[in-house]
Amino acid sequence: MTRPNEVVLLRHGESTWNLENRFSGWTDVPLTAGGEDEAVSAGILMAGEGLSFDIVHTSLLRRAISTANLALDRMDLHWLPIRRSWRLNERHYGGLQGLNKKETAALHGADQVFQWRRSYAVPPPALERDDPRHPRLDRRYQDVAAADLPASECLADVVARAVPYWKAGIMPDLSSGRRVLVVAHGNSIRALLKYLKGIGDEEITRLNIPTGIPLVVELDGDLEYAGDRYLGDPAVAEAAAAAVAAQAG
Amino acid sequence: MTRPNEVVLLRHGESTWNLENRFSGWTDVPLTAGGEDEAVSAGILMAGEGLSFDIVHTSLLRRAISTANLALDRMDLHWLPIRRSWRLNERHYGGLQGLNKKETAALHGADQVFQWRRSYAVPPPALERDDPRHPRLDRRYQDVAAADLPASECLADVVARAVPYWKAGIMPDLSSGRRVLVVAHGNSIRALLKYLKGIGDEEITRLNIPTGIPLVVELDGDLEYAGDRYLGDPAVAEAAAAAVAAQAG
Repeated sequence: MTRPNEVVLLRHGESTWNLENRFSGWTDVPLTAGGEDEAVSAGILMAGEGLSFDIVHTSLLRRAISTANLALDRMDLHWLPIRRSWRLNERHYGGLQGLNKKETAALHGADQVFQWRRSYAVPPPALERDDPRHPRLDRRYQDVAAADLPASECLADVVARAVPYWKAGIMPDLSSGRRVLVVAHGNSIRALLKYLKGIGDEEITRLNIPTGIPLVVELDGDLEYAGDRYLGDPAVAEAAAAAVAAQAG
Repeated sequence: MTRPNEVVLLRHGESTWNLENRFSGWTDVPLTAGGEDEAVSAGILMAGEGLSFDIVHTSLLRRAISTANLALDRMDLHWLPIRRSWRLNERHYGGLQGLNKKETAALHGADQVFQWRRSYAVPPPALERDDPRHPRLDRRYQDVAAADLPASECLADVVARAVPYWKAGIMPDLSSGRRVLVVAHGNSIRALLKYLKGIGDEEITRLNIPTGIPLVVELDGDLEYAGDRYLGDPAVAEAAAAAVAAQAG
């Protein structure tokens, strides 16, 4: 059962704002009933493959935390130690958070919105410091240094804050032989894969991470990328990624 | 909102084996639907009192973990750091685990069973080392020293393993100003209260902890006991404790 030097990355299931086609970012929206089912299915898939874990890492957002809880409960691993970090959060979508994606396109133009959503280095408009959505007003981020706390992020920003967590938070577990599950978000998983696989800035924006399908990443003895595979039917993972691409999440 | 030097102790909601009147101990039985409702209600009660927390401690058993998850989710505190320890587990019921309480009385005599259940220092028959129920065969306890791992426990044994966790695991959080929630079991909560309140060996066996009703324990500047109160309607807490006593859980 033990497969040393593997880590599993899992994107949370469908959230209520995925369904409503709104920009969620750091907004703490819950899973839909369908998203809960995806989480349980992910647990069944992992258990069916004989995977097990010694520790789980999640973001500070409910949709990832609930996905982890549901999948682990299904695997009889509810008792695992858990570590959480804001560095695994979804990309902060700044002033777009809460807006409907189609309405935003009508307001700012489809090209502008496409750029915010898909360019590597252009962040959406930042939240004002006194905007009630600003993370400095959210107690869960009170221990994060003010300079680190984003008011908007492009994917490059997510890479800049997620990779240090890979190195300081996750690699030590892997080094000590722990089997690690990371439950996170489309863009924080992109950020980790960009680093691990050495994917280019342009190419990473076109990589779509399906929801609820565990990605097993194999690492070599130096904990460097050696391969990856989605669990379950490859056609299902591909269709799920295509669905994400179509929604351009 | 901040009330320094308070800690909240919460016993998990009804489990399937509470309902079936079977000895559960370290058997990892889930909550019933009613038990899940109790957990959510506990969250509502705590939020309604303006309580909040910085960290939560649970046992390694699903009924406490699910209770914590449900209550914290209801309080928007799903993102809290979590620490788990076997030292907060329910009393290990040895060879009685899985047996129906009435059948056990028919088998061993009501007096004997009463003694196992209610005496402070007489443990039930221990599990054989090769019994599949022995905790040494359960991966979640693999890091516990063999000498510490019980095959049966009396309440004195629970005190002996839970109090060190209070001192080494919980007091450091309280000392550094964190507000602490402990979600555990009838006998591990008894053990903590015995220590904190200096309750006698005989008296503690008659103290009944209601399920799903948060107990706020006030501590003085030295983190010593200064008072306690159940949240919500005192008559409800009293009736719930009486129900536990009647079941002689």
